[in-house]
Amino acid sequence: MGTGPIGVFDSGMGGLTVLREIAATLPSHDTIYLGDTARVPYGVRSAETIRRYARENAEFLLLQGISVLVVACNTATAVALDDLKERLPIPVFGVVEPGAKRAAAVAPRGRILVLATEATTRSGAYERAIHLHAPAATVVSRACPLFVPLAEEGWVDNEVAKAAANTYLGELRTGTRVDAAVLGCTHYPLLRETIAAALGGDVPLIDSARSTAEDVAAAVGAGGSGLAKRRFFVTDAPERFAAIGSRFLGAAIESVEHVDVPSLRG
Amino acid sequence: MGTGPIGVFDSGMGGLTVLREIAATLPSHDTIYLGDTARVPYGVRSAETIRRYARENAEFLLLQGISVLVVACNTATAVALDDLKERLPIPVFGVVEPGAKRAAAVAPRGRILVLATEATTRSGAYERAIHLHAPAATVVSRACPLFVPLAEEGWVDNEVAKAAANTYLGELRTGTRVDAAVLGCTHYPLLRETIAAALGGDVPLIDSARSTAEDVAAAVGAGGSGLAKRRFFVTDAPERFAAIGSRFLGAAIESVEHVDVPSLRG
Repeated sequence: MGTGPIGVFDSGMGGLTVLREIAATLPSHDTIYLGDTARVPYGVRSAETIRRYARENAEFLLLQGISVLVVACNTATAVALDDLKERLPIPVFGVVEPGAKRAAAVAPRGRILVLATEATTRSGAYERAIHLHAPAATVVSRACPLFVPLAEEGWVDNEVAKAAANTYLGELRTGTRVDAAVLGCTHYPLLRETIAAALGGDVPLIDSARSTAEDVAAAVGAGGSGLAKRRFFVTDAPERFAAIGSRFLGAAIESVEHVDVPSLRG
Repeated sequence: MGTGPIGVFDSGMGGLTVLREIAATLPSHDTIYLGDTARVPYGVRSAETIRRYARENAEFLLLQGISVLVVACNTATAVALDDLKERLPIPVFGVVEPGAKRAAAVAPRGRILVLATEATTRSGAYERAIHLHAPAATVVSRACPLFVPLAEEGWVDNEVAKAAANTYLGELRTGTRVDAAVLGCTHYPLLRETIAAALGGDVPLIDSARSTAEDVAAAVGAGGSGLAKRRFFVTDAPERFAAIGSRFLGAAIESVEHVDVPSLRG
């Protein structure tokens, strides 16, 4: 494997929750993050469009010399990961498989709830990945589109967030038992406690960011030297990204560079 | 003025509330609607990006032979209308001026509340337009970003919508009196009753869609012949647009065509 930085892209700032875990697991590896904020959100777009955006983001990061790519967006992973793996000359990691594997381990014969965007839900990617590891599990999917704007508004545990979580998930508390719930969108960990409360408080919640970071660490090794460089690129509105993204990263974002992707666009 | 159709564009489906009023006011005029659903939402993007998108949308509609353009998106109007007026060889109408004019007439010396997206609010466009007609009015702006995803989710009067409206607007009910409120985003009319209740129920709510339609009618004349043709184009996800957009238009959307804008993109 090359010695270039770890490339991470997401449709916006949600992937910063994944970068946060990568930085914690591999503190001396350089990273380059691309947030495609000019085209966010991916969750409501068609599969074909999402695959094109993913290819364009990957090409940009390749030009920056990355040696590993992490698709830190559940929607892009669900819809575009196979396409990227086929096309790119470097290892590519998604966030669906690690979360699915962990959910399968927690509830191999149970009822697993997947919370995700419309596009991820429609793709059936989690269902397939979970059944690969736990063929006897029952998978129930629930699209929760309001959770993304709620996380970006910083409304993660106020009355609005609680009402939204109860509207999406309330009936699951009284119906058949849920044995594990996957936070199938990188924004959702910010609403973790509100989601847990809406589900009744005792359902294991699986956040794939950490599992993904562990998979990446196993592949690239503990190497790297000294203090890691962390670069941030966005395709639009860098100030908004820096201001709101810090809550997702759990650390200040000092400097954000603006780029056009695809760079040859007229 | 030419005899081509009336062109209408919006970042997505919100502009269908404006098209609805245009169709009611000018029932025999052909219309062409473009929803830029591949790049929605505009409200969180930078001014420069929004101006580029607006130019590209206008160019597409010009190629379809429109003789009038209506920018049925408050954010694009606030940020890009002057630029479009300068560049285009046909009359261009926005949605900010009609709503501002009506608010100024309703409360010329009063306190006018403008509810809009982040980008519209930041632009100060409503404040400038209202003060042009009512220099003595006080303008208070409030960005309500959650209202757009709520309208698209169809959550316009449930507990979540009520909690969001109260969180954004509740303090305005108990503070200094509001004499008029402008729904400064084309999605907001769907939450009209919830917004009215959060403001206390007796504040005049101004929806610029109808005023805009009247301004357009005054300019193009009552002409047109027989049954109007209504074409719909989107830049992504036509099925979602047809399904959810019907609620915004107040009528079924039979057929939606998918286009790439800009069409020369690689």
